[in-house]
Amino acid sequence: MVPSGAAGVNEARDRFRADLLEAGLLIPTGVDGLYGGSERYESVVRALDDLIDRVGADQRARMIRFPPVMPWANFVANGYLESFPDQMGSVHGFGGDQRQHAELVRRAEHGEDRGPLLRATDMVLRPAACHPLYPTMRGVLPEEGCRVNVSGTCFRHEPSTDPFRMQVFRMHEYVYLGTPERARDHRDEWLRRGIDTLGRLDLPVESVVANDPFFGRPGRMLAANQRDEELKFEIVTPVYASEPPTAIASANCHLDHFGRPFGIETARGDVAHSSCFGFGLDRIALALFNRHGTDPNAWPAAARSVLWP
Amino acid sequence: MVPSGAAGVNEARDRFRADLLEAGLLIPTGVDGLYGGSERYESVVRALDDLIDRVGADQRARMIRFPPVMPWANFVANGYLESFPDQMGSVHGFGGDQRQHAELVRRAEHGEDRGPLLRATDMVLRPAACHPLYPTMRGVLPEEGCRVNVSGTCFRHEPSTDPFRMQVFRMHEYVYLGTPERARDHRDEWLRRGIDTLGRLDLPVESVVANDPFFGRPGRMLAANQRDEELKFEIVTPVYASEPPTAIASANCHLDHFGRPFGIETARGDVAHSSCFGFGLDRIALALFNRHGTDPNAWPAAARSVLWP
Repeated sequence: MVPSGAAGVNEARDRFRADLLEAGLLIPTGVDGLYGGSERYESVVRALDDLIDRVGADQRARMIRFPPVMPWANFVANGYLESFPDQMGSVHGFGGDQRQHAELVRRAEHGEDRGPLLRATDMVLRPAACHPLYPTMRGVLPEEGCRVNVSGTCFRHEPSTDPFRMQVFRMHEYVYLGTPERARDHRDEWLRRGIDTLGRLDLPVESVVANDPFFGRPGRMLAANQRDEELKFEIVTPVYASEPPTAIASANCHLDHFGRPFGIETARGDVAHSSCFGFGLDRIALALFNRHGTDPNAWPAAARSVLWP
Repeated sequence: MVPSGAAGVNEARDRFRADLLEAGLLIPTGVDGLYGGSERYESVVRALDDLIDRVGADQRARMIRFPPVMPWANFVANGYLESFPDQMGSVHGFGGDQRQHAELVRRAEHGEDRGPLLRATDMVLRPAACHPLYPTMRGVLPEEGCRVNVSGTCFRHEPSTDPFRMQVFRMHEYVYLGTPERARDHRDEWLRRGIDTLGRLDLPVESVVANDPFFGRPGRMLAANQRDEELKFEIVTPVYASEPPTAIASANCHLDHFGRPFGIETARGDVAHSSCFGFGLDRIALALFNRHGTDPNAWPAAARSVLWP
């Protein structure tokens, strides 16, 4: 008898994970949610990254790439520490002398806590591709606002054996900064483009109202508010038979969440609003492998021609 | 009068940095050595990354891409903590309750130390593209050994205003694992290929014996030993008139440094030796901008045709 409920879900996850490892697509590192990618896996991620550049080519967005580490000060100023402290990857260094170094090595070799011997730096791993962008946009925007194409590696501290929940993953986003109306239009336009693009990859998708996993009790109110105002949508696709579908992209209205702390103004002199649409590159790649099998050469021709035109 | 010595050097660095920022190639983040890259800058980094894949295509190396974060246990086991503690970027998270969260936010807003409220995770930023590879190679190698192509983002905690000394940077490597003789041959072969490839980009380069910046007093002996045994070579190119040339690639014999802790064996049953050749993608890109100017369209045609065939 096939177990139902939670056990059934875990079985489907474990089977998919085993398939990925057996096919050599992901290389386990010994840390949950942290994998190397094979040439085949990475070729799909790169094809997706390039596809998303093509899908937005008509928008003449400014393209910028930021590293996976961002300034701590901006992480605090944009409210991430306040809302999602449990997901952070704070970067700490060593500034001690030889004696402290010897103690650090001793602790490491005995599996003891290294924390007290290290010092927090002015950096943190970025949780979203667009977060390093906003502080660099300080000032007055042009009349039509500003569109930006960002892509890169992100970190969220949520160890899991579900391949869809990686701790380090790639995200490709289109961001808009400008008036509230145009920010919402950008979000809605990209939600349409996202559904269309993912559908052309032969993934069954739909958009649903969603919320971010805000921390603690006050977080529940923030999440409820986010849903009520329909600020966040996710594009989801079914991946495990007995489980709700999984988010592979998301569309977000930020209101003035980034414009206010970083002093970004519209041409009219108001605080800028912003919005973004993010494609989860690893999640889309995994959804493709999950639906179409572990060999991209055997994927549906139509989906292949979208990825490798 | 042009100042000489240290002041002159800093002036050349500052001028180059100002040129890069003015041309919009690098976008400052407020943290020294941490930049965003413009479309133009990133197109050069990507062209280099692809060029290096082509230069090694005949070697049929296995291609793997690892994320910028690696397991702490492997970072300790491979000796990096022992030799270069001052360069590490240890990843710390928050596992506290709402009260501790409130205190964390308060400290962050007042610029107070967050370290004591965070906990070290089982992860660390990787200092070199190849470091996550070795623990995944445990076991017996094929007769001919194993060649691997790795590329990705690395971190070293050395804040500097010199654009050539980024804290987060990209590195593309060819690694060999097998017998001592073949490991040395791989290193020497790639040193030749590296010099040839960089020369075709119209960079004046030479190879020099080098050493890593080992920590502390015992580190001086390790560094001297590394030079005596000619384990490390760097490919250097002049970038600032009054200063020694800058390393843009390096070739390393590891002996059994990785084979021993990670249980990697040759077909004969000996501990595997390894070697690697690493191209510093950001440093090569910067050397190109430094030598040929900030507009790649105006670079020498021969160099352009190597990058964009």
